[in-house]
Amino acid sequence: MFPYGWKVDQVKLSPLEDAVDPEALRRVLDGRWEPVRQAARRRMRELGPPAGEPGDVEAQRVRVLEELRRLAEEGYPRQGFPKEYGGEGDIGGSVISFEMLGLGDLSLLVKAGVQWGLFGGAIQALGTERHHRRHLKAVMDLELLGCFAMTESGHGSDVARLRTTATYEAGEFVIHTPVENARKDYIGNAARDGRMAVVFAQLIVNGESHGVHALLVPIRDERGRPCPGVRIEDCGHKGGLNGVDNGRLYFDHVRVPREALLNRFGDVDAEGAYSSPIDTPARRFFTMLGTLIRGRVSIAGGAGSASKTALALAVRYGEARRQFERPGTGAEVPILDYLAHQRKLLPALATTYALHFAQEELVTALHDIHGAVLDDRDDDGAEGHGAEGHGVEDWRQRELESRAAGLKAIATWHATHTIQTCREACGGAGYLTANRLPRLKADTDVFTTFEGDNTVLLQLVAKGLLTRFQHDVDDLGTLGLARFVAEQFAGALIERTAARSTIARLLTARGEPSEADLLDRAWQLQAFEDREKHVLEGLARRLRRAAGGDADPFEVFNDAQDHVLRAARVHVDRIVLEAFVAALDRCDEGAAGLLGRVCDLYVLSTIEADRAWFLEHGRLSPATAKALVDTVNQLCKLLRPHARTLVDGFAIPERLLDVPIVQYDDPTD
Amino acid sequence: MFPYGWKVDQVKLSPLEDAVDPEALRRVLDGRWEPVRQAARRRMRELGPPAGEPGDVEAQRVRVLEELRRLAEEGYPRQGFPKEYGGEGDIGGSVISFEMLGLGDLSLLVKAGVQWGLFGGAIQALGTERHHRRHLKAVMDLELLGCFAMTESGHGSDVARLRTTATYEAGEFVIHTPVENARKDYIGNAARDGRMAVVFAQLIVNGESHGVHALLVPIRDERGRPCPGVRIEDCGHKGGLNGVDNGRLYFDHVRVPREALLNRFGDVDAEGAYSSPIDTPARRFFTMLGTLIRGRVSIAGGAGSASKTALALAVRYGEARRQFERPGTGAEVPILDYLAHQRKLLPALATTYALHFAQEELVTALHDIHGAVLDDRDDDGAEGHGAEGHGVEDWRQRELESRAAGLKAIATWHATHTIQTCREACGGAGYLTANRLPRLKADTDVFTTFEGDNTVLLQLVAKGLLTRFQHDVDDLGTLGLARFVAEQFAGALIERTAARSTIARLLTARGEPSEADLLDRAWQLQAFEDREKHVLEGLARRLRRAAGGDADPFEVFNDAQDHVLRAARVHVDRIVLEAFVAALDRCDEGAAGLLGRVCDLYVLSTIEADRAWFLEHGRLSPATAKALVDTVNQLCKLLRPHARTLVDGFAIPERLLDVPIVQYDDPTD
Repeated sequence: MFPYGWKVDQVKLSPLEDAVDPEALRRVLDGRWEPVRQAARRRMRELGPPAGEPGDVEAQRVRVLEELRRLAEEGYPRQGFPKEYGGEGDIGGSVISFEMLGLGDLSLLVKAGVQWGLFGGAIQALGTERHHRRHLKAVMDLELLGCFAMTESGHGSDVARLRTTATYEAGEFVIHTPVENARKDYIGNAARDGRMAVVFAQLIVNGESHGVHALLVPIRDERGRPCPGVRIEDCGHKGGLNGVDNGRLYFDHVRVPREALLNRFGDVDAEGAYSSPIDTPARRFFTMLGTLIRGRVSIAGGAGSASKTALALAVRYGEARRQFERPGTGAEVPILDYLAHQRKLLPALATTYALHFAQEELVTALHDIHGAVLDDRDDDGAEGHGAEGHGVEDWRQRELESRAAGLKAIATWHATHTIQTCREACGGAGYLTANRLPRLKADTDVFTTFEGDNTVLLQLVAKGLLTRFQHDVDDLGTLGLARFVAEQFAGALIERTAARSTIARLLTARGEPSEADLLDRAWQLQAFEDREKHVLEGLARRLRRAAGGDADPFEVFNDAQDHVLRAARVHVDRIVLEAFVAALDRCDEGAAGLLGRVCDLYVLSTIEADRAWFLEHGRLSPATAKALVDTVNQLCKLLRPHARTLVDGFAIPERLLDVPIVQYDDPTD
Repeated sequence: MFPYGWKVDQVKLSPLEDAVDPEALRRVLDGRWEPVRQAARRRMRELGPPAGEPGDVEAQRVRVLEELRRLAEEGYPRQGFPKEYGGEGDIGGSVISFEMLGLGDLSLLVKAGVQWGLFGGAIQALGTERHHRRHLKAVMDLELLGCFAMTESGHGSDVARLRTTATYEAGEFVIHTPVENARKDYIGNAARDGRMAVVFAQLIVNGESHGVHALLVPIRDERGRPCPGVRIEDCGHKGGLNGVDNGRLYFDHVRVPREALLNRFGDVDAEGAYSSPIDTPARRFFTMLGTLIRGRVSIAGGAGSASKTALALAVRYGEARRQFERPGTGAEVPILDYLAHQRKLLPALATTYALHFAQEELVTALHDIHGAVLDDRDDDGAEGHGAEGHGVEDWRQRELESRAAGLKAIATWHATHTIQTCREACGGAGYLTANRLPRLKADTDVFTTFEGDNTVLLQLVAKGLLTRFQHDVDDLGTLGLARFVAEQFAGALIERTAARSTIARLLTARGEPSEADLLDRAWQLQAFEDREKHVLEGLARRLRRAAGGDADPFEVFNDAQDHVLRAARVHVDRIVLEAFVAALDRCDEGAAGLLGRVCDLYVLSTIEADRAWFLEHGRLSPATAKALVDTVNQLCKLLRPHARTLVDGFAIPERLLDVPIVQYDDPTD
């Protein structure tokens, strides 16, 4: 066992001396994508906050479609598409631009995501030249509005088992919804605006199923009427995002030409013979899903923007709002001076910073690994990530998928929690739609369960850790995974994803760790690494022990599910911290002092929330655990005067924050 | 220190053998108020779930007002008013009936609460015969719709400092809004329907302020136009509860007759002389607030109803919804079979049971202590609770206020958390308004910050515990409280509120506690009692230590605010557990086995969430803490087959659960 050791009764922090220019923070936050972010801020100033009452569904849909057209006209979608079809071929930039849409109306964010990310992205990633040439420009220009029709009422998380069929018959595919539960459900753009859908269906050729493939299926004609054989329903009013027209699609033996198959990973030739560069249906499907990872990355970014907006509003209110007199002074206390209020907002703010930096690393990895996708290469089929190689690139893709899944889960839950907290921190004012918070909460609420249910995603992350992204376990079910872990798990591998050299240097300088030094970055890194390693190895041991004999593999895994999810969480925590350390490494002195304390608060509030584990596993003594709680309090107090600076560092255009709550009256008025 | 001791490596639970009839659970839950609850279920079957799109504000306001009229016609409001004015004088029953409204449209619940609970309740509790005779029947019949105008934009939690003035001048009171921030804000019934308001204002007579008093002020004439000098604004669209017309009121030297003063606790005679049965303005105001406790109790009940509805929906969905194949069987797994899903829903379900029983105790206490209020006694002025006596009744009233505050905070946060979890547990389906969950979440969201902000309420509870409801600390500020604690705190007093004899018997039977027996009720009770005592005594020590010398009392309290809030929380936990034990004591054998396990899950999941404290304070060994986590898992597994029975025990009328999500298709369809 790694020797944390005890010590530490009390940490004494001295206040940060100098005020920091928010502009210095903005530069660190903007990082590599600064020009993209600045351009996006200009766009968001134009677009403004969501308008109208969120309940008026039709009016909102009309407005959001208009805004989508504005985005198309100014060329917003080009960034994410290949140059040869009029795009700019900048994946990372496109994800960042999307993230920044999240500062405004989240219905617009999701509608743009459906149209260009999911619908256009699927044509791009799963189709070949014939589809690209024919459709991509129309997709960008909004001449063709489309849907991403994967989820069915009966299968959302387990999409490999969805039941819509695409049966090859006489040169055509017949798309069919065999049972009620196989209708496509919650499909964006379906209820009102979409003309075409990328439909995911079990591909059946000569009676043989080849697993899930995607096909382009027209759903409405030029005049907006459903195509023959297509039935469309409206999902109706939702908890939020009512500017997006979610609907249901039913297909009754709808025929589409052979070329409608998005055939990058599987094709049927004119003679009716099926071929694919990938052997097994399961692996083929996971490869397809892997190319669609951008959606998941984008949602994590959008969630971050919403968290930032909520915190900016709550911190401003917390500084202006006063309640209860400070004894003996006659003056009322700004509510952000209360420890309980700081405890609500400041750890959430620190975590928002941390997740921002982790998201930045993720977008960079996506950009670097997937960049090649945008160089169209229909001729060489499915080369590159995932299709063939068992080598380095394959491993990198798997790691990328795992990080995208993990960060999406943690970032969206963080948004739900943070926006809820901010709403409560603003009391009755926070409940008024005019002050944006209720709508931020309602609109982002579904982020935790769409684009992959968070619990399912974390499970995916943990399985990846257990198998260390080994190539051949993709199509193992629970049974195979249980056997794999029992036979092959060889210890947790801590693969640093960011700031490798800095971290190595810090750890070397610290040397033999012997006592807890809560504010020592090296101790913090060790604590997160050690926890990850221990939890994962403990999980493997537990599964190995339980999987013996004729144990039911479902029961074995299910009984340990809390442990499985915990392994994923602590893994993500470590990746997030490393990203924060990398960001500290590159920021100038002006910001470094303040951001270092923000990083401390992120780390220590994370450990505090999980300190039962550290106590149970002899990583913290009771005395140190108590000192840690006290240090979190001190950090809150120390950062309180800088709270406004920290939210100003997000550089959210004022127009988006121009709501009654922040024009809060002077108490003497 | 109380010797918990170590031991316990593993607990092995055997499954519950017999199925339990939900009807047996219903009887235990309904308890003393069974006839009221059954009548309310019939009413709720009639009323049905909320109709219409929640965003259409005017349509909803119209519909909710219509439903309010239906309630008035069938005599719903009578229960809570005195017999001599046509009421039934049944306070407890009226609170229970109100709670049951929470199974339906929460806008109707809140509108009814504003009209009869707050507006009517204030006239009843703060007024005297002249007001009762003149208004109560009209309030019940809805001939007079009214507002409870206490909160101002600038003062919500600290209402003692609100700034609207009522100045006595030549036989009249002049009501005035001196600054923008003193406008009455978020006032229900103000934007559209109210004709009169109970306005809380600083009473000024001959230039002397006597603190906050309430006056009846007409705000609209017969035709619905604002009265002269009254300006009314609409708060507009809110996060939820859009069937309630919240608004703002400004008064510009509005004159009302002397008799408009609700004069039970303070009066001005025809000669312009002020008199009150209570000496100090602060104590007078707290006494007034104390009589209005019913609103706070009612909100906790309404939150419980919403939690129950959400759980009933999520459990039904969790049983019907299947996802991912069980290896080797070809069958898909109901999602409630997954441990992670059980962990989301079942501890929340257990806590909902626990809070139900605690709420039941609270309503009983309210009924018994406040019952006398309904015997009109204008002639003897302010006799009874709070006005004069320093004796037992005063102490009981203070304890009642403390419990109402604590339970309101815990129950409403529980509702927010539980409904959020249920929404997520239902994935995309949970985001559709047709499935009720989004609206349940949005409508109850403000419960945590209205009728007393939860954080402020818990602080109130903790101060009560520190001063043990001593009469004369009401008007101590922070300074006085710090001194009081430093000088007089003599150790935590664990005053059992329920099942006193049962608990005493259990503890005696257990004898000297020496080892942790997680499933032993006596151990559980000891654990909660001991934690409360230790936290509170630790807090007192900490304050005493810090308050020495010339310490700033604000800083002393503020630095310990997390500790203060924790003291309140663990106190409420203990009260809740005792109520659960009392309920187990009175339930028949059929339900006792199952409910006992539900109680175990409540206790152990509560300790699990706080086990860092138990570890830090030597109350649990690391091994026992791990065994506890494992036992929570086992309890989830054990209760899973009974989950449906447990939600059916709430006996929510089917019509309220008749939404698409629970008619979930057979997976073979």
